[in-house]
Amino acid sequence: MQIGIIGAGALGLYYGSMLQRSGNQVHFLLRRDYETISAVGLKVFSINGDFCLTEVNCSKTAAEIGKVELVLVGLKTFSNQDLIELVRPLVGTETAILTLQNGLGNEDLLAAAFGAEQVLGGVAFLCSNRGLPGEVHHLGEGRIRFGEVTGAISERCQQLAKLFAEAGIPCEVSDDLTRIRWEKLVWNIPFNGLCALTGKSVTELLLHAPTRQLVVSMMHEVISAANRQQVKCQIDAVPFIERMLIASDAMTDYQPSMMIDRLEGRPLELESIYRIPLERATATGTAMPQVDMLLRLLLVGEN
Amino acid sequence: MQIGIIGAGALGLYYGSMLQRSGNQVHFLLRRDYETISAVGLKVFSINGDFCLTEVNCSKTAAEIGKVELVLVGLKTFSNQDLIELVRPLVGTETAILTLQNGLGNEDLLAAAFGAEQVLGGVAFLCSNRGLPGEVHHLGEGRIRFGEVTGAISERCQQLAKLFAEAGIPCEVSDDLTRIRWEKLVWNIPFNGLCALTGKSVTELLLHAPTRQLVVSMMHEVISAANRQQVKCQIDAVPFIERMLIASDAMTDYQPSMMIDRLEGRPLELESIYRIPLERATATGTAMPQVDMLLRLLLVGEN
Repeated sequence: MQIGIIGAGALGLYYGSMLQRSGNQVHFLLRRDYETISAVGLKVFSINGDFCLTEVNCSKTAAEIGKVELVLVGLKTFSNQDLIELVRPLVGTETAILTLQNGLGNEDLLAAAFGAEQVLGGVAFLCSNRGLPGEVHHLGEGRIRFGEVTGAISERCQQLAKLFAEAGIPCEVSDDLTRIRWEKLVWNIPFNGLCALTGKSVTELLLHAPTRQLVVSMMHEVISAANRQQVKCQIDAVPFIERMLIASDAMTDYQPSMMIDRLEGRPLELESIYRIPLERATATGTAMPQVDMLLRLLLVGEN
Repeated sequence: MQIGIIGAGALGLYYGSMLQRSGNQVHFLLRRDYETISAVGLKVFSINGDFCLTEVNCSKTAAEIGKVELVLVGLKTFSNQDLIELVRPLVGTETAILTLQNGLGNEDLLAAAFGAEQVLGGVAFLCSNRGLPGEVHHLGEGRIRFGEVTGAISERCQQLAKLFAEAGIPCEVSDDLTRIRWEKLVWNIPFNGLCALTGKSVTELLLHAPTRQLVVSMMHEVISAANRQQVKCQIDAVPFIERMLIASDAMTDYQPSMMIDRLEGRPLELESIYRIPLERATATGTAMPQVDMLLRLLLVGEN
């Protein structure tokens, strides 16, 4: 399959490299890593075994890539003002656009520009980060949950699921994109912001009783808001949070992407992970006061 | 008057020096500044005019000071485990003990050890900080509000008010120590913690709309809790907050003591400024959820 990767950070580089290794024609839109990857290729350091791609299709502009069958979007949402113009040159009438970006609002932008029937959304459970130019580190997990914006379990979904599975990427098709987005937010909203604000890892927040309780309390806030959205099936808070804590307790000093963004002086994905979810909660009559306070504290650090 | 200063930080050094300059026999319990002040005296850099005390009674232990007529306590409350043993050698049957420490619980500790009739409490509106050893900087204000733990407007109160006035320290006697303590907390609870947590000054928090709104919302929380305490007169939230914001807007990039404590790696006064007020609010049926969240975020940074 002809695949274009827009937003080749840790996520885009990792999934793109897996898809190329399994035989697809993958095109990467690159900025920071362009020179290195063009010259010497892409090195993947993975818990499942390291590998190297010596021949990589690198582009500096989306126009160079041209139309593809699948656009995989991993762009940081703080660059969403460029999203449509970056994606547009890759989109033909049959192109599927799958955004794995964080938070809410991404499918809406794409659907408004290209039509809902071309857009899929998903969430990635992937621990990865960029190393030196030309390198990507896969530290754990890697599973994708995705679905059509329309909610259909389409033939296209099944084909993409097969594509990912053949590439060694565990995946699951869902008929409830709203729910899988909000389920991810139950983790992202407390941990991304609290880690970025305090400079403490997931492990440190969980080992310290006052912040562990705060995390749980914020998870309850997010689930209450999620269950007021158009989800096909409610999230059962207590067992869901319990499972999420067990998984998080097993992480070893994990630093969420937002914490790394703050540490390295980049902007934070506050619009998609906080502002839009708060807006949707308010619109459906649910307050998330702790989430609101966290957003205010994160915003003041963006100056 | 024979006066002993326990806790000779910025507050103790400044008020002690003013009281000595106006003719009192002031004894300072010193640690960091002992060598310098013993050798060359204490330099006061004040907005009201600089001055220097060349002869200062310096002690390394409270026992050396012995009994005095007034003990002025400026100890950081994170050292309150030492409070009683530091104060005890200075206390005779007629000694007045005035604590100007931050937050709640200080008078209670002193009253339990020495009897409520010997203890007064107060709040200082003082912008000051320590410079090099042997120096103290008075940047603004300086007013004290104080009263008897018993609530009486005693003759002793009047005498102390005269003592302060003669020393050039504006002061006001109150028959409602609980109220003046909580009124101070309306400022300290939002600003001390938010500045310490975010590393932003009072001015920065107020110029940024999301945190300005958060400050106001937390002030409302504190006033609601204050009005459930045994205060003789309720705090009228809207005009009180408006006055407090006007005063705070006039500050020039002021860094509260807790922010400086965090920046310089000292512990924070979380017990007296947050934990005990939260406990008293809970005991009187008022929740302070934003204050509670702030305390949790500050606590995790203490590790």
